[in-house]
Amino acid sequence: MTSPKPRLVLTLGDPAGIGSELVARLLADEDARNAADILILGDEGELGAGMETAGVTFDYQVVTDASRPAEQPAVPSFLQVGQAPEGGWRRAEVTAEGGAHCLETLGLGVDLVKSGHADALVFAPLNKASLHQAGMKQSDELHWFAERLGHNGSVSELNVMDGLWTSRVTSHIALREVADLITEEKIIEAARLIHSALREAGFETPRIGVCGLNPHNGDNGNFGTEEIEIISPAVERAKALGLPVEGPYPSDTIFLKAVAKELDAVVTLYHDQGQIAIKLLGFWQGVTVQGGLPIPITTPAHGTAFDIRGKGTANVGPMRNAWNIACAMGSRRQASRISN
Amino acid sequence: MTSPKPRLVLTLGDPAGIGSELVARLLADEDARNAADILILGDEGELGAGMETAGVTFDYQVVTDASRPAEQPAVPSFLQVGQAPEGGWRRAEVTAEGGAHCLETLGLGVDLVKSGHADALVFAPLNKASLHQAGMKQSDELHWFAERLGHNGSVSELNVMDGLWTSRVTSHIALREVADLITEEKIIEAARLIHSALREAGFETPRIGVCGLNPHNGDNGNFGTEEIEIISPAVERAKALGLPVEGPYPSDTIFLKAVAKELDAVVTLYHDQGQIAIKLLGFWQGVTVQGGLPIPITTPAHGTAFDIRGKGTANVGPMRNAWNIACAMGSRRQASRISN
Repeated sequence: MTSPKPRLVLTLGDPAGIGSELVARLLADEDARNAADILILGDEGELGAGMETAGVTFDYQVVTDASRPAEQPAVPSFLQVGQAPEGGWRRAEVTAEGGAHCLETLGLGVDLVKSGHADALVFAPLNKASLHQAGMKQSDELHWFAERLGHNGSVSELNVMDGLWTSRVTSHIALREVADLITEEKIIEAARLIHSALREAGFETPRIGVCGLNPHNGDNGNFGTEEIEIISPAVERAKALGLPVEGPYPSDTIFLKAVAKELDAVVTLYHDQGQIAIKLLGFWQGVTVQGGLPIPITTPAHGTAFDIRGKGTANVGPMRNAWNIACAMGSRRQASRISN
Repeated sequence: MTSPKPRLVLTLGDPAGIGSELVARLLADEDARNAADILILGDEGELGAGMETAGVTFDYQVVTDASRPAEQPAVPSFLQVGQAPEGGWRRAEVTAEGGAHCLETLGLGVDLVKSGHADALVFAPLNKASLHQAGMKQSDELHWFAERLGHNGSVSELNVMDGLWTSRVTSHIALREVADLITEEKIIEAARLIHSALREAGFETPRIGVCGLNPHNGDNGNFGTEEIEIISPAVERAKALGLPVEGPYPSDTIFLKAVAKELDAVVTLYHDQGQIAIKLLGFWQGVTVQGGLPIPITTPAHGTAFDIRGKGTANVGPMRNAWNIACAMGSRRQASRISN
């Protein structure tokens, strides 16, 4: 007997962007279809448009109740959410309609996973400005997800590229404020969070490196003492808690260790420490995992790509990577649900 | 009539490392030999050992007075400096003897360029710890060069990889001190310094990008105001001074512009902002230009590589790049000397 497939919810993303093209191209691939029982959420006209743009097609069944088993389990289900505005969706621009449609589909997707009707959510690209025009109060979708889920614990966007996972201890703050905000507790929490996500994604014994803050790790205190006073103690305490962390490593060499596959994950201390590296390593080809949430949610790291919308040239690679990570995380969640 | 060749001085580096192997491999190449009139400084036994390790050979003439024209201008000259210690040079370790030998050869090389007997200096790898054991008081060779030359202006190590040049406004200081040390004057000076070096190296109209300090350039002041209050005004003032600078650009995307060849140089504001990127881009394959000095001095960015000393596997690529940049800078210097 084979283990049952995870059940994944997939949203089409903002109609102004390349989301439906990516979903069409993803699910035209038999391996991707066979990896999960699939429920697509969005506007059916958009799915057709995505297939046309991508030049592909696949069979699906329209359902009207996402909480009931589909008639043909092997065929992706499609549930209509909302409807296109009169005159159709506007394309390649920020719109409140597109944002509102994203929030409606994402909200339903989150609810289905939370209630146990699905195991993971993958969303095609949305546009933050559109979400804000549609009334989203939170700074980004991660915090919107947390509120929708009633989750009060720490959350962090995790970037994943080619098997390398990264998290941040601080993010959108001025560089001059960084040093005062680095604490043992925050470093341990960031390590715990990424370790948890890595385990969910199937890494049995992930190797997690922690960045230093100062040049050459502070050169034994000559250029800053945070490594001695805060970061090394945090790494030791995290080890004592059973977390497979190491470091701190100087931030200009830690990514070379990651490239050499000596680390699976890097905990960065400030925004650009990680972002300089991961953009050079091909961030736009990567995946964003909404870390810290009680349910698995992934998405391609790139955005709605208005400039290539409708051209049929969108690269499905990041979407496929987001899909594969969500399938792995969904399988774990499903197994844990079944065993309980 | 062809223009005369620049005259280059080349030192063999620390005998404990891979310097002589690199010099042998470099000058075994006819193109490298033909690019300049060459004076090698070091211990002749070392040159022979380097040829043996590299498995190559080339003709050279031993001279005893570096200030007099050589008998065969087309053949590299060799001038003995000091002599090997009793029992020979120690290998693959930090030694005061190796450091003292480096300082003696470098001092002579600097003097020959300063006095107009040569146009540029290239040095094979030295070991900073050996220099310090030999009594060097300055933090690094760049500041030792400046003192030897009686140069009081600003200096900065410039890293060059695959045509991309970088400089730093601050360097070996704690991250928490960076923001307070960024001034308009220092940014303009860093831009001026790298522009000058680029011009000497043959870039007629180099494109120089300046990094922002905060995530997303501070997001219009939401995450820091240095871009608004200091960095943008510095870029505007530098432009008004005729410097071809642009920016500030967010530090997590500026290197993508450089990779796309939209920039020739990047002025970074703190150590890891540049070093994270350039180590990922292949720093160890790059060149260090001793920026700000009144004479051209270049060297491979890598070190003495004790682990592969004597194995015959050293990669001559960075040494060749250092040679080519010095030839370009030396040609300019020579042309300007002849025209004056």
